[in-house]
Amino acid sequence: MSALEQAFAAAEAAGIRQERVPVDGLRFNVARHGRGRPLLLLHGWPEFWLVWRPIMERLGNDFELIAPDLRGCGDTGKPFAQPDPTATADRHAADMFGLMEALGIQRFGVVGGDLGAYVIQAMSHRAPERLVGSFYFCTPYPGLGHRYGQPGHLIEVWYQYFQQLPWAAELVGSSRHACRLYFRHFLDHWSGDNPAVFADLLEAYVDNFMKPGNIQGGFDWYLSSAATRRLWLEGKLPPQPPISVPTRLLWGRRDPLIPPDWSDRLGDYWTDHSLAFVDAGHYVHAERPDVAAGEIRTFFDGLRKYRPDMR
Amino acid sequence: MSALEQAFAAAEAAGIRQERVPVDGLRFNVARHGRGRPLLLLHGWPEFWLVWRPIMERLGNDFELIAPDLRGCGDTGKPFAQPDPTATADRHAADMFGLMEALGIQRFGVVGGDLGAYVIQAMSHRAPERLVGSFYFCTPYPGLGHRYGQPGHLIEVWYQYFQQLPWAAELVGSSRHACRLYFRHFLDHWSGDNPAVFADLLEAYVDNFMKPGNIQGGFDWYLSSAATRRLWLEGKLPPQPPISVPTRLLWGRRDPLIPPDWSDRLGDYWTDHSLAFVDAGHYVHAERPDVAAGEIRTFFDGLRKYRPDMR
Repeated sequence: MSALEQAFAAAEAAGIRQERVPVDGLRFNVARHGRGRPLLLLHGWPEFWLVWRPIMERLGNDFELIAPDLRGCGDTGKPFAQPDPTATADRHAADMFGLMEALGIQRFGVVGGDLGAYVIQAMSHRAPERLVGSFYFCTPYPGLGHRYGQPGHLIEVWYQYFQQLPWAAELVGSSRHACRLYFRHFLDHWSGDNPAVFADLLEAYVDNFMKPGNIQGGFDWYLSSAATRRLWLEGKLPPQPPISVPTRLLWGRRDPLIPPDWSDRLGDYWTDHSLAFVDAGHYVHAERPDVAAGEIRTFFDGLRKYRPDMR
Repeated sequence: MSALEQAFAAAEAAGIRQERVPVDGLRFNVARHGRGRPLLLLHGWPEFWLVWRPIMERLGNDFELIAPDLRGCGDTGKPFAQPDPTATADRHAADMFGLMEALGIQRFGVVGGDLGAYVIQAMSHRAPERLVGSFYFCTPYPGLGHRYGQPGHLIEVWYQYFQQLPWAAELVGSSRHACRLYFRHFLDHWSGDNPAVFADLLEAYVDNFMKPGNIQGGFDWYLSSAATRRLWLEGKLPPQPPISVPTRLLWGRRDPLIPPDWSDRLGDYWTDHSLAFVDAGHYVHAERPDVAAGEIRTFFDGLRKYRPDMR
């Protein structure tokens, strides 16, 4: 049994089941657990649903937890064999609304970081009436602006450009050793250079990314977001109405990718938000699951419209 | 016989000999050919002396040509097994003056591009009296400024950051396939996306970079130049006196890495220079050897102090 199969078996033993749900012609893999108010958990890159296991185990008595693999990731389908520039945040947002409709859920809370945070923002613009509340970790958002590409930060964001190249996935997946070297960097470095966070899961992550199409499936996000990212950095993104969905943000103080100081412009993009910091890197949900789960519960408990019987 | 050994044998049959010359404790590999006025040829990244073969064959009747492998590159020694942040342009400049002293040559002309162009600039600041003239291809220089890291250009310069990471060389060298994918990109893309330029030499380049330490040896330049590059991009580089060495620049009109428009500030950094453009990418010397050799001959012939009997 591979490390990934072992991790899946352990999750299943803990009551987390995986289902396949067709949405708009694509088969989504969805991990589900618990009962209560529906809560959608959106992973980032280089993650897949498994990153949510610690959160799911802690919140199963309070929420019906739904953790899909996004388009191109994990065991969800890869619609294209070649690099796909159409996997935009809005495309992912449409996928997620379609998924929740397929599950019979109209209104729900949503939690995510990294790529997942982009998707939540796109969902918030597309259909805010369907979101009861949103909870973000260390959040990429247009207010990062030129800082996200400033000279001193290029050592952190080079991968957003490399991963657009048509041969990049082939290089990273050219052997299990190459794959491990590459993803270990992002798992360890973004955990505040703490290799202990993902040590037990490293081989399971390598198993995941060595599945056909999974490296390119993740890289597709960087290809698909390139034009928008450039507008961000150039300060030329067309103005958008601020997000009115009630929002809580929990930011890792040691996130090397999106430093906490760069949360200073959240008020330009969210009208109803609060922010807290925590001693963690980029993967708050994996690094500090007790704190993260407690914050998620407290935030959603505080939303009056989010009743236990709302489904 | 490997592709690289075949290329060396063919060069030797054409009268190009390789010698080992110790300089400051490091053994330099130097390709030599021709007789006449001494001319030092400085390769860039990802190159080694072999890139000069077409130029050497065309100029052997006019010049004594000296094409070393720079520190860490080709068959020159690698002083450190680990990533080495001390291989700065000034360190390479000291190496080159030491090499020419070891060969008994006090004054000489110098030709180079890419990394070689950085080294010529450092040599010009360190000991201009030893340089009769300098000839550059598509030239990185401080006048590129913030443009070299602007949002629309990050898809070109990501490698300057990736290559600083301590695991990058291990990834690129994890297999011959990985190595080929990586270097083929830079050889083909910088030739104006023309895979024909290096097609016959691709396997020889892969042979070269698969030699122990050669990938890291090249990456050391990016680690060693990181602090200075950041100052460039931030416009904070301390002012330097302009270079007074007589200079000619030949710039590829289709260079994707250093677009010809960005030659507009050469006058701030050189007091005695002329510039011409040519239909080529980044590797003018490899792509247009007839034009490049002719321009080199014409330029150095025009320098009055550069007599055929000067050695």
